[in-house]
Amino acid sequence: MGIHRFFTSLTDLERIIRCPGRFKFEEHNVAAHSWKVSQYAMFFGTLEEMEGATVDWKSLYEKTINHDFAEVFIGDIKTPVKHASPELKQMISHVEEKMMEKFIIHEIPEEFQEIFFDRMKEGKDSTLEGLLLEFADKLDLFYEAFSELKRGNTDKEFVSMYEEALTKLLKIPLPTCVKYFKNVILADVVSEKTPIDITTLTQDVLSEA
Amino acid sequence: MGIHRFFTSLTDLERIIRCPGRFKFEEHNVAAHSWKVSQYAMFFGTLEEMEGATVDWKSLYEKTINHDFAEVFIGDIKTPVKHASPELKQMISHVEEKMMEKFIIHEIPEEFQEIFFDRMKEGKDSTLEGLLLEFADKLDLFYEAFSELKRGNTDKEFVSMYEEALTKLLKIPLPTCVKYFKNVILADVVSEKTPIDITTLTQDVLSEA
Amino acid sequence: MGIHRFFTSLTDLERIIRCPGRFKFEEHNVAAHSWKVSQYAMFFGTLEEMEGATVDWKSLYEKTINHDFAEVFIGDIKTPVKHASPELKQMISHVEEKMMEKFIIHEIPEEFQEIFFDRMKEGKDSTLEGLLLEFADKLDLFYEAFSELKRGNTDKEFVSMYEEALTKLLKIPLPTCVKYFKNVILADVVSEKTPIDITTLTQDVLSEA
Amino acid sequence: MGIHRFFTSLTDLERIIRCPGRFKFEEHNVAAHSWKVSQYAMFFGTLEEMEGATVDWKSLYEKTINHDFAEVFIGDIKTPVKHASPELKQMISHVEEKMMEKFIIHEIPEEFQEIFFDRMKEGKDSTLEGLLLEFADKLDLFYEAFSELKRGNTDKEFVSMYEEALTKLLKIPLPTCVKYFKNVILADVVSEKTPIDITTLTQDVLSEA
Amino acid sequence: MGIHRFFTSLTDLERIIRCPGRFKFEEHNVAAHSWKVSQYAMFFGTLEEMEGATVDWKSLYEKTINHDFAEVFIGDIKTPVKHASPELKQMISHVEEKMMEKFIIHEIPEEFQEIFFDRMKEGKDSTLEGLLLEFADKLDLFYEAFSELKRGNTDKEFVSMYEEALTKLLKIPLPTCVKYFKNVILADVVSEKTPIDITTLTQDVLSEA
Amino acid sequence: MGIHRFFTSLTDLERIIRCPGRFKFEEHNVAAHSWKVSQYAMFFGTLEEMEGATVDWKSLYEKTINHDFAEVFIGDIKTPVKHASPELKQMISHVEEKMMEKFIIHEIPEEFQEIFFDRMKEGKDSTLEGLLLEFADKLDLFYEAFSELKRGNTDKEFVSMYEEALTKLLKIPLPTCVKYFKNVILADVVSEKTPIDITTLTQDVLSEA
Repeated sequence: MGIHRFFTSLTDLERIIRCPGRFKFEEHNVAAHSWKVSQYAMFFGTLEEMEGATVDWKSLYEKTINHDFAEVFIGDIKTPVKHASPELKQMISHVEEKMMEKFIIHEIPEEFQEIFFDRMKEGKDSTLEGLLLEFADKLDLFYEAFSELKRGNTDKEFVSMYEEALTKLLKIPLPTCVKYFKNVILADVVSEKTPIDITTLTQDVLSEA
Repeated sequence: MGIHRFFTSLTDLERIIRCPGRFKFEEHNVAAHSWKVSQYAMFFGTLEEMEGATVDWKSLYEKTINHDFAEVFIGDIKTPVKHASPELKQMISHVEEKMMEKFIIHEIPEEFQEIFFDRMKEGKDSTLEGLLLEFADKLDLFYEAFSELKRGNTDKEFVSMYEEALTKLLKIPLPTCVKYFKNVILADVVSEKTPIDITTLTQDVLSEA
Repeated sequence: MGIHRFFTSLTDLERIIRCPGRFKFEEHNVAAHSWKVSQYAMFFGTLEEMEGATVDWKSLYEKTINHDFAEVFIGDIKTPVKHASPELKQMISHVEEKMMEKFIIHEIPEEFQEIFFDRMKEGKDSTLEGLLLEFADKLDLFYEAFSELKRGNTDKEFVSMYEEALTKLLKIPLPTCVKYFKNVILADVVSEKTPIDITTLTQDVLSEA
Repeated sequence: MGIHRFFTSLTDLERIIRCPGRFKFEEHNVAAHSWKVSQYAMFFGTLEEMEGATVDWKSLYEKTINHDFAEVFIGDIKTPVKHASPELKQMISHVEEKMMEKFIIHEIPEEFQEIFFDRMKEGKDSTLEGLLLEFADKLDLFYEAFSELKRGNTDKEFVSMYEEALTKLLKIPLPTCVKYFKNVILADVVSEKTPIDITTLTQDVLSEA
Repeated sequence: MGIHRFFTSLTDLERIIRCPGRFKFEEHNVAAHSWKVSQYAMFFGTLEEMEGATVDWKSLYEKTINHDFAEVFIGDIKTPVKHASPELKQMISHVEEKMMEKFIIHEIPEEFQEIFFDRMKEGKDSTLEGLLLEFADKLDLFYEAFSELKRGNTDKEFVSMYEEALTKLLKIPLPTCVKYFKNVILADVVSEKTPIDITTLTQDVLSEA
Repeated sequence: MGIHRFFTSLTDLERIIRCPGRFKFEEHNVAAHSWKVSQYAMFFGTLEEMEGATVDWKSLYEKTINHDFAEVFIGDIKTPVKHASPELKQMISHVEEKMMEKFIIHEIPEEFQEIFFDRMKEGKDSTLEGLLLEFADKLDLFYEAFSELKRGNTDKEFVSMYEEALTKLLKIPLPTCVKYFKNVILADVVSEKTPIDITTLTQDVLSEA
């Protein structure tokens, strides 16, 4: 049914809840997550530009708003599964690609297919925009974990999620972004009142990084 | 943490919603689904027994209450994904097995491990109990689809789900159950008021079976 | 309408929320509760068997999956009401029985009525299976209360519920189960991080038992 | 804890859902229901006054806002239970009274106890205000059923609820109210677009009244 | 469509959530809020009467049950907006009045229009009943903020809401009510277990009042 | 608290529900809406480009992801209010601007303020990108109304919303987009099964345009 079907499929992502199966004080859907990722990317792209980098904004925004579209087909598979085996991770990526391919060929009018193939491919490459996407995506995971900890969620999954997201953020090869995040944002994060000792938890990760 | 951790993991299945991403008038979680499947199995096992079969009730009930426990690890992957490729389906089964294995070895005290391995393995085998599990599981899918159609859900996914569940039910090699389902239950189903023409939809499947 | 109506009534139990009227961070329905009770029973039945007892597994599983079916008729009456007067408690049991009787006679085909009467009768008798049901049912109440306390619910109803469930669990005449629960499971429970001092609360109950 | 505890108990009624166990497109809590009942009573009291009756407004409003307070203790027992036996209905009323009594004696400061006893007693007596409460309470049930039918809920429970509420409304000995309801309000109700044939359903009840 | 349309519009207030946009452990709708306000007013009106005041009960109850009806038209505008500028606050009041006027003229039968104009006008005037409405309305805000703090909501918006509601309550020129609230109710409030230090927070407001 | 506070405020938009107070089968939040608008804009911008227009993609994406950020301050005011009076509409815009200004000055570090002022200003200007934002924003309203009609929501508000969104879409001076929407997308829309006669409803609007 063409573009109409593409448009109505967008709403499916409002029904896919992130981190299925875990207790959360607040749930987030994949559509809203994608929007927040594009907002973070807007900020960090600006920061990079202010420090002299050249940002391909069209590419950056398209990467962020499209980066989880494939979850329309496959849902939000539990993170531990994704990391259970490298083969599975690769297999899942492959299936997502195949289902995306099938969707584009069946639903998208021919004149738009090339553009859709280009936009919907995996965005986390080694370009500046790919790295900014990676940074923004991990930052949202960091914030999701932080706000659960702040509300008093003591399930160890969210402590691990906070540690892992933080660890990965610090390793992304975007020195300007990492520095700003570490010096400015993280300082504000640890100054918030939380039932858990967020300062120590954060310091532990920083000292291991 | 042993059995305590096994017990608390049960609650995770209350948070895994079936058919993620689709619009539904009513959502169902995997824990409640497992309970309904054990109820259907209780009835159809009784029917088989009345017709002379010998039912291993312990096995039947354990198969039904345990059959979706692996979703604790992997979530409810969207059905189309499961059917996207035979390799993926096999790969997913393999990962589920591996994660279950890891869970049992890490969390279950040694003296119970053998029993857990036995209980948590794939239940849909060719025994009478395995077939009854298959029948009861498909019946719940049938009822989930039917109740969406009855409430006026016109999304074609639920029409397909109804047709597929019905088609598969009719093919399960349990003649007594299939006959009762077809002659008694289905007669009541199609007599319900529905916005969609459920009688014709059902007849179409029956005539193709 | 026969078995079809029985099957559709199962879904009603997914809509009956336990502990109505109280603030809870997480709600549980009666269908999912029934499934968890059957899981606990599976474990403690196994434990009894390993210690030499003979378990009638068919009976045990049927008791657990059916034990709250009568809430289809009457809902989850607030616990304080049940304990408000012995006459009321008896009266309510009587009404549940009468409504069950009426349901079976009107909805269940004649050939299955005897089996349904047998399965749907009150399961908490003095048999090993009746005691295991009682144990598993209280254990779920215990876990419901514990997880609210763990999430920071300071309403005194949940502190009382925790104390009462624990007190009753310890008194059930199943020494093997009680011992395992006390020595193994409870040790893990009190080692979890909770805003309330769960160790002292638990010790107070243990010392009074 | 006195009046503070009375005030915090009010919130419990926001968590008690009417008609537990049934599928509904929209849920209503007892607190919001009580407010709507007071609004209906305001209108029909005005109507009675315009036709020459003398309304004790203080009594009318107190009856409406307090009429379901006892559900704090007992929850919303499923309607069929209430009607299952006259003894049970009486027994339940008796228990509600006893629990209310206990609550007032334990929680309400002595100087207010008499007033609370007076206000919290069963309000549906034969005074004009008692009848207006009965009328307003049934009208809300009528509207709850109507709006489910309008949204396409075809479960027969809501058809019965609509018929019963309508039948009872027409029999309440408040000729002015009944006439206005029948001639003015019902005319608007049946003119709404509904998937079910609401006009015929309504006419059937009217012709039997 | 007359009174029928007025009655169905009442349900809109069940769908308007108070304090939109903020994280809350528990949400409250405007209909339930209106009911709680009428309950508080019943108590404090009684208190005033016991101390010798003359309460116009009809007026008091009508003020409380009608005081937020205008949110049917305008929704629950975020509080900071209302206070952003005195002109805006006045402009919003003006619009609410105009929409109410339009609604009454179009929907309410002529014979009831005068009564509706009278009842739906702004109720917070300088009469005893107007002050009691103001007191009861702020008390509900106080309780909403308190119960979030009690559940562990550390967002500073709820700390501010608690402080502001308390500050305003203490300033309302109803000495009997303020005294009872301060000496009796507040003593019970601060004796509850809360993750935040509610006693100090409360003392700080009291010492500034 | 700087950028950290900006980032956490994004989550507020996940809690602001569109069309407050109306009955909906499915709710949508402002964050997810913003994402869908950016997706529609991506498509229609591509279409314009294919027909020879020059699209400033950076501007287009920033307009779409930021266009409802001001609802953080003011919430989703009910649409009828916005249209109640031109003065109010202007006043509300003015207040939004003032609150945004205050937010930027207080929360955003000085070096980013100019960029934020530029990005957060009203985006619906007469540029191609401003018109594409207007088109995409109305299209989401159109789809929200359509999906309610499709699910059987017969409330006249959604019929009006469908008609108005369609009427406005057809008038936006983007002939390429309007033509594609009318000839391709609308053809698919009216071919869907809906309880309401969507074809006639749509034709009526088209014939008046």
